Amino acid sequence: MQQRILSGMQPTNPRLHLGNYEGALRNWVDLQERYKMYCCVVDWHALTTLFENPQEIAHNSREVAKDYVAAGIDPSRSSVFIQSHVKEHAELHLLLSMVTPLGWLERVPTYKEKKLQLKSDSEPYGLLGYPVLQAADILLYRPAGVPVGRDQAPHLEITREIARRFNFLYGETFPEFESMIPSDELRAKLPGLDADESGQIRKMSKSYGNCIYLNESEDETAEKIRSAFTTPTKMRKTDPGVPEGCAVCQYLRVYSPNWEVQWEEDRQGLRGCMQNKRELTEILNEYLRPIRERRKQISDADIEGILEHGAEEAREFAVETMDLVRGAMGLR
Amino acid sequence: MQQRILSGMQPTNPRLHLGNYEGALRNWVDLQERYKMYCCVVDWHALTTLFENPQEIAHNSREVAKDYVAAGIDPSRSSVFIQSHVKEHAELHLLLSMVTPLGWLERVPTYKEKKLQLKSDSEPYGLLGYPVLQAADILLYRPAGVPVGRDQAPHLEITREIARRFNFLYGETFPEFESMIPSDELRAKLPGLDADESGQIRKMSKSYGNCIYLNESEDETAEKIRSAFTTPTKMRKTDPGVPEGCAVCQYLRVYSPNWEVQWEEDRQGLRGCMQNKRELTEILNEYLRPIRERRKQISDADIEGILEHGAEEAREFAVETMDLVRGAMGLR
Repeated sequence: MQQRILSGMQPTNPRLHLGNYEGALRNWVDLQERYKMYCCVVDWHALTTLFENPQEIAHNSREVAKDYVAAGIDPSRSSVFIQSHVKEHAELHLLLSMVTPLGWLERVPTYKEKKLQLKSDSEPYGLLGYPVLQAADILLYRPAGVPVGRDQAPHLEITREIARRFNFLYGETFPEFESMIPSDELRAKLPGLDADESGQIRKMSKSYGNCIYLNESEDETAEKIRSAFTTPTKMRKTDPGVPEGCAVCQYLRVYSPNWEVQWEEDRQGLRGCMQNKRELTEILNEYLRPIRERRKQISDADIEGILEHGAEEAREFAVETMDLVRGAMGLR
Repeated sequence: MQQRILSGMQPTNPRLHLGNYEGALRNWVDLQERYKMYCCVVDWHALTTLFENPQEIAHNSREVAKDYVAAGIDPSRSSVFIQSHVKEHAELHLLLSMVTPLGWLERVPTYKEKKLQLKSDSEPYGLLGYPVLQAADILLYRPAGVPVGRDQAPHLEITREIARRFNFLYGETFPEFESMIPSDELRAKLPGLDADESGQIRKMSKSYGNCIYLNESEDETAEKIRSAFTTPTKMRKTDPGVPEGCAVCQYLRVYSPNWEVQWEEDRQGLRGCMQNKRELTEILNEYLRPIRERRKQISDADIEGILEHGAEEAREFAVETMDLVRGAMGLR
């Protein structure tokens, strides 16, 4: 039987950006050649912080799934599905909640961060249990590995701890899994197009408004690059640039085959920022073209069919895991 | 449509005692005449404290269900089922966990009590969430009422609070429900057969070993009554008894039609403890005979069929509630 991997994203926004693609999706697309891949849209997770305003989650989930497929996830090979369509995630979450010590959850560093994200002070019980739900998502597929960004890898530790504790209490049920980190780190850590007040390039994030979205138009991409952050002291073409601190040059380094020449010319005042931006726009729109073309061809009906089929496939495996889990606990 | 009520017991033990019958089951049997009754065996709840040793839960669940039916729950009218067979309980639990403020749970008085019951110091996340799971059990059936002992009634308050908060956030979904407390309080608070070190009669509880079980033999009941606690200073028949402090007299008061005469004779030394015990044994075995007879006739196969049918009926309604819930939250 083919080994399995599992990964997912929260549908907090209706569209994925280039950073999501380079940091995760591209890796998934590569991995689906060798593994049975479960690509989940974790809508229940989005509720831990969006519970006061969840109306967009269902819509966003479909849009995110479209981005998965547009990016190259092949639904005839990988299972693309929405978490809440596979109820076994909720059942395993409940059972794991009985074996996860409260103290482990209270010590998770991101817990406090997320608490601060909440507008309300009614921090929900489920926010504390976020890692339990994530453990359920993963362990349900008994994966060989979980594709994840390097910065996210430490968050998988608690899933491993929960799995080990379950195995200790009820017998070997969940195999160990590895964290599958994208090999091209430069690409995986693609920054945003702007800088903070001190002139440092920031990470790509919807909250900074500095994203290139997979499904935006070529003109939108062009416009964003046109107003991107470059060397602040390079007013004229002939002024020396500092490509290390220029967002556009960072992108050229990733996407342009002759970035070394471009950087040197930028540094020496042989080329201006407009030229860099023009060239980057062309390269990036070219790069994103197949994704954007594919996305245009995915209708709402298509994605419903894909998600239905994906949930069925996921459920088929999840049911087997739940049989093992209930058996191990004596619950049947 | 007939109004619904919901109640359940934990399968921490394989058999129910007379106190469970008088405090809960008897009330359920009465109520099933007027309501569609969902009689749940809450096996997931048992895990909150038995997670280190859950092997007996599945067996106990079947035995408890047999006791329900033996006590007079009519499976052709009421739905007898095991919580873990209706996965919607887990799904609603997960969704309610997103709207239940952590602070509410930390302030539940029984939470600290239950913490102490645990042999391990690895208090699980799920123990803190016990009231959330209970709220899911109840709200899933949108009941008009919940039959519950008077001492348990305050525990339903947090379910009401969670329902109100859900309704506030997502629109009216869960109707208010009432606590249905047995009218015969004396009977509902049946004590055990023994006393503590200070001579106070204790409540009936498996941990005190002072229970009469529904499914024990007549001889076992006779033997337990033979060694029951009576007035400690009444050594001979002619010594004056204090029926208010005598376990056997407490039972006579509940079960004997002429208890007032018996008490008076006991007080005046006109009758001895042996006579009280003999008479109580006879009355109680008579009282329990139909339940015991019925229980003997319920085979393992019978109860599996009843539970399967019960889970189907429960699921049928639970699915409707989950549709409402997901609709209210925008999750579909």
